[in-house]
Amino acid sequence: MADITIIGAGNMGGAIAGLAAAGGSSVQVLARSLEAASAVAGSLEGASAGTVGDAIAGEIVVLALPYPAVAEVLGAYADQLDGKVVVDITNPLDFSTFDSLVVAPDASAAAEIAAAVPGARVLKAFNTNFAGTLATGSVGEAQPTTVLIAGDDTAAKEALAAIVTAGGLRAVDAGSLRRAREAEALGFLQLTLAAQEKTSWGAGFALI
Amino acid sequence: MADITIIGAGNMGGAIAGLAAAGGSSVQVLARSLEAASAVAGSLEGASAGTVGDAIAGEIVVLALPYPAVAEVLGAYADQLDGKVVVDITNPLDFSTFDSLVVAPDASAAAEIAAAVPGARVLKAFNTNFAGTLATGSVGEAQPTTVLIAGDDTAAKEALAAIVTAGGLRAVDAGSLRRAREAEALGFLQLTLAAQEKTSWGAGFALI
Repeated sequence: MADITIIGAGNMGGAIAGLAAAGGSSVQVLARSLEAASAVAGSLEGASAGTVGDAIAGEIVVLALPYPAVAEVLGAYADQLDGKVVVDITNPLDFSTFDSLVVAPDASAAAEIAAAVPGARVLKAFNTNFAGTLATGSVGEAQPTTVLIAGDDTAAKEALAAIVTAGGLRAVDAGSLRRAREAEALGFLQLTLAAQEKTSWGAGFALI
Repeated sequence: MADITIIGAGNMGGAIAGLAAAGGSSVQVLARSLEAASAVAGSLEGASAGTVGDAIAGEIVVLALPYPAVAEVLGAYADQLDGKVVVDITNPLDFSTFDSLVVAPDASAAAEIAAAVPGARVLKAFNTNFAGTLATGSVGEAQPTTVLIAGDDTAAKEALAAIVTAGGLRAVDAGSLRRAREAEALGFLQLTLAAQEKTSWGAGFALI
């Protein structure tokens, strides 16, 4: 068993794995490529690496994937996610236009995921944090990084918050899973501001 | 003539009037009650007070009103708003539930206002700033207040930004008026966090 499974070994997956390991959690990192997963897990105490398709070892499963890659991974793991805490970190932007989200206006990526795996306890988290702010613990030079966590299952939110705070960051309960819509709007706005250099990729919005 | 007309003499109207006056703008404050307008204008250099229905003197018109009050004021002034810069500051929450906005999911209050007064140059601004952060110039103790300005008319955005920066705050171009939707989501999320004491009414999200 592991405390947390991170599916995805990109910048966000690596930062979340590092945060969890820093707090003393045992971490399983799964990626399409074992090499990529090993590159993340190899530098962390108590972390293991594997490929997508391996059995999920963690009670908390972070989908550290771009939005278009989520459906396939959910399909591969649907039967293993009942009762698990599943964490959606996506910002479902239309990157061809940078002018809208690809989910329906009254929906959210998190709501779609919750509908796809109804037995899972789905949370929205980390989508308003740039990877650099998770790694350094600060937004810009001096403001503590806050991880907003939205979801309908209080115990699930507390479990993720415990990992975040053990890793040295602040966790804030952002309300029900319906607030994922606003969190995705915030993530979207923040990405457009960074892309236009109105903020930096190591900064963004800090909750004061 | 005045540089800017503020319609509404509540906390936000007072803070925006104070900001504009601090930057040297001439300010007209209009409210339902002359007493309320005078209470704001009386303490500001170069400010005049009047009631809703008086002729608009400013080139920039800030609707410092709660969302439900906007339609009536637009109706009263529709013929005077052609060519004006009209600034929407609303957060159109359903305050009975605190769980959704009252505008359509694919719309925004700003888009509705732009449709209602097609001759005006509509901007979304100030809705992500608590009044206290406009008055003090800081989010919490130390982070400079940033006013996000979204709109389709670059010159209009620049005119409002000039007033904001003259008053000592930072102004950031947040993109087209389509970004009002995300700004309203951010304002909504921020209000729910303050109502739950996850942040304070003198703080919120700071753009770092």
